[in-house]
Amino acid sequence: MLTLIKNAYILTMDDQFTEYEHGFLLIEDSQIKAIGEMSQLSIDFKDINIVDAEGGLLLPGFVNLHTHLGMIPFRSLGDDTPDRLRRFLFPLEQVVTEKLVAASSEYAMAELMLSGTTTFSDMYYFEETVAKSCEKMKMRGFVGQTIIDMPTCDYETPEKAIEGSRLFIEEWKNHELVTPMIAPHATNTNTVEDFKSIVTLSLETGAPIMMHVSEMDYELTEIKEAYNQSPVEFLNELGFLDCHLIMAHGILLSEKEIELLSSANGLVSVAHCIGANTKSAKGVAPIKSLLEQGVCVGLGTDGPSSGNTLDMFTQMKLMANFQKNHLKDRGAFPAKEIIYLATRGGSEALGLENKIGSLEVGKQADLTLVETKSVNMFPIFDPYSAIVYSANASNVESTWINGEQVVSNHKLVRHNIKELRYELDSQMVIFREEVKRIENK
Amino acid sequence: MLTLIKNAYILTMDDQFTEYEHGFLLIEDSQIKAIGEMSQLSIDFKDINIVDAEGGLLLPGFVNLHTHLGMIPFRSLGDDTPDRLRRFLFPLEQVVTEKLVAASSEYAMAELMLSGTTTFSDMYYFEETVAKSCEKMKMRGFVGQTIIDMPTCDYETPEKAIEGSRLFIEEWKNHELVTPMIAPHATNTNTVEDFKSIVTLSLETGAPIMMHVSEMDYELTEIKEAYNQSPVEFLNELGFLDCHLIMAHGILLSEKEIELLSSANGLVSVAHCIGANTKSAKGVAPIKSLLEQGVCVGLGTDGPSSGNTLDMFTQMKLMANFQKNHLKDRGAFPAKEIIYLATRGGSEALGLENKIGSLEVGKQADLTLVETKSVNMFPIFDPYSAIVYSANASNVESTWINGEQVVSNHKLVRHNIKELRYELDSQMVIFREEVKRIENK
Repeated sequence: MLTLIKNAYILTMDDQFTEYEHGFLLIEDSQIKAIGEMSQLSIDFKDINIVDAEGGLLLPGFVNLHTHLGMIPFRSLGDDTPDRLRRFLFPLEQVVTEKLVAASSEYAMAELMLSGTTTFSDMYYFEETVAKSCEKMKMRGFVGQTIIDMPTCDYETPEKAIEGSRLFIEEWKNHELVTPMIAPHATNTNTVEDFKSIVTLSLETGAPIMMHVSEMDYELTEIKEAYNQSPVEFLNELGFLDCHLIMAHGILLSEKEIELLSSANGLVSVAHCIGANTKSAKGVAPIKSLLEQGVCVGLGTDGPSSGNTLDMFTQMKLMANFQKNHLKDRGAFPAKEIIYLATRGGSEALGLENKIGSLEVGKQADLTLVETKSVNMFPIFDPYSAIVYSANASNVESTWINGEQVVSNHKLVRHNIKELRYELDSQMVIFREEVKRIENK
Repeated sequence: MLTLIKNAYILTMDDQFTEYEHGFLLIEDSQIKAIGEMSQLSIDFKDINIVDAEGGLLLPGFVNLHTHLGMIPFRSLGDDTPDRLRRFLFPLEQVVTEKLVAASSEYAMAELMLSGTTTFSDMYYFEETVAKSCEKMKMRGFVGQTIIDMPTCDYETPEKAIEGSRLFIEEWKNHELVTPMIAPHATNTNTVEDFKSIVTLSLETGAPIMMHVSEMDYELTEIKEAYNQSPVEFLNELGFLDCHLIMAHGILLSEKEIELLSSANGLVSVAHCIGANTKSAKGVAPIKSLLEQGVCVGLGTDGPSSGNTLDMFTQMKLMANFQKNHLKDRGAFPAKEIIYLATRGGSEALGLENKIGSLEVGKQADLTLVETKSVNMFPIFDPYSAIVYSANASNVESTWINGEQVVSNHKLVRHNIKELRYELDSQMVIFREEVKRIENK
């Protein structure tokens, strides 16, 4: 099966940032077979599916490096409430069911695809159902079962969650679209014993670990009081830095911790979630220092409870403005670099740098086409600027994952958003009752 | 002529923040004639234009309190360049023509309307043509001729620009949609003599003044060196605080200056342009202090060169995150307050608080309808949150200005965006040549 995308302004995001201003890209099955200027195009046009990009911007699909897809039901709930975590999140998560997570995740995957994201990295509950949703939705996902030192909606104890993770990894390893992960909740919400089991499991299976690290001020205090260490020192001692570790947030990292990360044996990265971090007034992560020290960085939206939308356009714009203002340097983090982090940065963090993240022959065809006909997309002197500063999620016209077109003309190809919403809404009955009960308290 | 908007979730933004969850709004000619719950609806449906909002969010149209509509040609040009002002802006403004400003302003008004903005406050060159564009596009606008102590593309001297402003005010005062303003460029770019003429002109005619104030660090230094004063002290001495004054930016205001503003005799306000301010690493304006001291605040995008898009959704989201993070308080500036500033705040700054800014019987019908069918708009526990944290410009389905529907089903009613773009593009030939010349230098 061959698909030709023609008349695209292609931003390959390869090492040389090669661009084809009047470009074509040829997909064979799941991979990119050819790419270049239209003038170099010479193929047999028989039995070929042709998509005219009409001058739109074609770039690698975005990688959303940290999210909680099961949390769509929480969107717009208690956003500006100081005690949101204890007032809303913890009580409501007691009534989260497997069916609710499935419906939420499928709806969330639709939102990801419709906004040009082709790979996500998720941690929440009932994660096997998220893996199954990836198959159904044809979405590339890293999927991590949350392990926390308290009873949750899916496992009574963290030990059972670790055992569940082992079986989950066994079952889903080597899947084409799904990569199972282990997701201890945070540095201060598990026992040392459980952390050690998690490191062992990761080293034995090669499964990546995703964890909230250096996000909360009280997290630092608790780790300091219990172990007289910073969170990263603590993780280092436990062996986490020998694993494939994706640290979500990393807001409060010290220079000393960044040096430690820089000398890690494993593949260690930070998922920068600027929207969620600043909406909750937690601060701006030291991304410049991390990159200067060679630590891998990608961008994440966090869950729809914290970051509200799952689209990377919002995050890219927020990151540019927050980092520039934080560093007092309008030249810092130019648009091209922001897009690099949102595509290749994420793919490197996931260990997929040879598979996705740039548009090169032999890589998997994970792509997004951003139309330039809408009012906000003119003029375009710099296509990277147009994507970061002008575009929004609704400018995404088409998306391909693993060679398959999943979004066409701003609509899902295989699914119907109305039906996905109906299913999610119908799974939210008990959840909504619980919300009312809490709000009336 | 009667128009009934039915089945809307209405956020009136009146003093009590009245909401109608299943509401209707009746427009007669240019005004709101009735508003309430659908259950209270009892009118004769003959000869009436009916719009079914299908559960969408209906709220006052946004007021964009500071912009430069003539600068669409500059969008995505040199965004991350440290010396952008001198490298791109000043040289390119030498080749700006009246026709280019007209085409740019009409395109910009389309962008405003399509993103739910119904009133703007603009300063740039050839402003009489912007006023004419308001008539053509049916847009409500405050329009100020820039006065600066150097030759510009429209006036050889600031004195001629002041004289031009006087004629402009005479010609356009009492217009239904257009309000003429006087727009001295900044506190440090005019002579004291010209400032005095401007204050006199404003006091004589009642025309508002719009000016860049307390935006640049070197502005503070220059005023300090020349007059041993802060910018607001300087303005106060010149009589500006007795006028109707809209200060754009106000980033670097001190507490002492805010107290001065608070005791102003005139109507003095700040146009908070968070996107432009932070993208250029200039800082976060002290909006909490300004509001606590009773100074009026509205939101602005700044020009498309600095803020890139003209939509208020981007600004509302950026403002929420920046102010919360700046104040280290996730409860600061809740979504409802942000929307207040983007609607009523702006209308108060313009002295239109009795005419627009909220949905109340007798006010002008300036409205926007935000659809809730798109993937990012579910669920909605809090409609204000959904607008600030989830929505983007493309969620705007319909817009009414002065009772006339100017956007329907995401499209302009009277105009065609393709044609507006074609006209703008055809006026950009010399501009593009100049860009190439600069880039090749």
